[in-house]
Amino acid sequence: MGLQMAEQCVTLIDVGLRDGFQSIGPLIPTDIKIAILRGLHASGIRRIEATAFVSEKAVPQLADAVELLRAAQALPGMDPQVLVPNERHAERALRAGATHLSFVLSVSERHNQGNVRRTPRESAGEYRRIVAGLPSGIQIRLNVATAFDCPFDGAVAPTTTLALMDELVDVAPQAEICLCDTTGRVTPDRVSALFAAAKARFPHAPYWAFHGHDTFGQGTANVMAAWTAGVDRIDASIGGLGGCPFAPGATGNVATEDVVWMFQHMDIETGIDLEPLTDVARSAASLPGASWGGRVRDALTAQRSRLATARDGSCA
Amino acid sequence: MGLQMAEQCVTLIDVGLRDGFQSIGPLIPTDIKIAILRGLHASGIRRIEATAFVSEKAVPQLADAVELLRAAQALPGMDPQVLVPNERHAERALRAGATHLSFVLSVSERHNQGNVRRTPRESAGEYRRIVAGLPSGIQIRLNVATAFDCPFDGAVAPTTTLALMDELVDVAPQAEICLCDTTGRVTPDRVSALFAAAKARFPHAPYWAFHGHDTFGQGTANVMAAWTAGVDRIDASIGGLGGCPFAPGATGNVATEDVVWMFQHMDIETGIDLEPLTDVARSAASLPGASWGGRVRDALTAQRSRLATARDGSCA
Repeated sequence: MGLQMAEQCVTLIDVGLRDGFQSIGPLIPTDIKIAILRGLHASGIRRIEATAFVSEKAVPQLADAVELLRAAQALPGMDPQVLVPNERHAERALRAGATHLSFVLSVSERHNQGNVRRTPRESAGEYRRIVAGLPSGIQIRLNVATAFDCPFDGAVAPTTTLALMDELVDVAPQAEICLCDTTGRVTPDRVSALFAAAKARFPHAPYWAFHGHDTFGQGTANVMAAWTAGVDRIDASIGGLGGCPFAPGATGNVATEDVVWMFQHMDIETGIDLEPLTDVARSAASLPGASWGGRVRDALTAQRSRLATARDGSCA
Repeated sequence: MGLQMAEQCVTLIDVGLRDGFQSIGPLIPTDIKIAILRGLHASGIRRIEATAFVSEKAVPQLADAVELLRAAQALPGMDPQVLVPNERHAERALRAGATHLSFVLSVSERHNQGNVRRTPRESAGEYRRIVAGLPSGIQIRLNVATAFDCPFDGAVAPTTTLALMDELVDVAPQAEICLCDTTGRVTPDRVSALFAAAKARFPHAPYWAFHGHDTFGQGTANVMAAWTAGVDRIDASIGGLGGCPFAPGATGNVATEDVVWMFQHMDIETGIDLEPLTDVARSAASLPGASWGGRVRDALTAQRSRLATARDGSCA
């Protein structure tokens, strides 16, 4: 026995190909998407939300779901999850060969109606049917959207979120549970409090994740709050792409490169190489129509060029 | 005795007029600076770093220090501090009527040489002389720059920072002590650790402040870490203006409006009205040559317009 500390690890799930691309109006050619996907893989990312199986009419940007899923599955070691809002689309995803379903429902009645045209209780029924019919070896993730805040109704009470989770957690005890700040309006205190309450209420749930947006500048602060609450699976989006068509102003998931930078500088292992990741982030952020976020891209560029020594002054 | 919780308060010190403006190349007309100053005051801000008394040749942007100080002192309830790097400039500031000096030195030898052309030990001597000659009723603040990280030499060991503080803290036991992340490269874990160590080593020091940059997207995360460590005085810069001429890439103090938004949403009293503050932030961020930061300005604009309901999709 030595004094060596156990190495701490965090798993980052890049949702840019889904949450990010979905927010971009102009259709992105599939080969450009696949180039970004491959760039993510080359930088060390092994978990992504590759696409969503949803109505192609409603979300034409993700109409190439099958191709994206195949391209992701072709990458060694990559674990691509795909978003599904109901049983019908889950079946489509499984037929296309998906091995990791990412089911989403919202705590907020209005957001769930707008997002998937069901009450949260009806969506809970969809989740039960998906899990009941899940072939062995297929992983499932439960995304609890508007877990903290609804774009229409404002703050969501923790009791409301926990009450819906009461109906869901035991349906698939091994599912990864992701509490989502859909609007970016949560603050670190509430991230800490809800994860503490949820982990106390569902002590047998083994896998917890956090999904946040940087819309109001709380991105890394909330990720840090989740991490401190014992959450070691973090959603982020390359280049800070993202948003939600039903969450006005919710442009920008927390940028993957900013989150990687943070964890690396805290000596927490991400398995990701920041330099190539940042190159991919620059490509993603420069896509036509993209609403980007994050600071690390520009900071690394400036750090590299070190042009600023010509001026003088006093600074703190 | 009731169950009512004591109201929590945080004091924000806007450093945009100094740290922000100093980083802007094109000279800002003094009346524009004063308009921003008055806007800050109207939004409820009562502490600012109004300017710096430094070499006018080296920092022509702050050559109007006397006018800015006077304009700030004319605002009811405003407590304007002015940055001073040595005894000579402190005397100039006092002659101009300053009532609150903000002394700066760096832990890092190279940064201090570049910034104020002295060794940290020589700067400590300047601080001792300033404090020795301080007229009664004049407040002093001690800014410990590069307390965490140096733009030239990288991470600064906590022991190095604490050793320099050993020479400084008892010089003026009532001084506010501000630990500054000059480069924006610190992470929340190190903010927490250094404040914990400093407060344990100097338990008699009553006033602690944190000054951070958002260069690498750690702005609010680090502010939250400082707050959690018991630091209730936070520097921020309107519109996220800021940087350091000797810290390449260190563009952008954490934006005041983002910090105010965070504390307000945690029910921590700031005394500041976010709406007019955000208007001032928009003016500041649109100054020619400004390098801005922060997310709240755009988020509030988007939230107000709520244009996004026309599109469809699934989001988490």
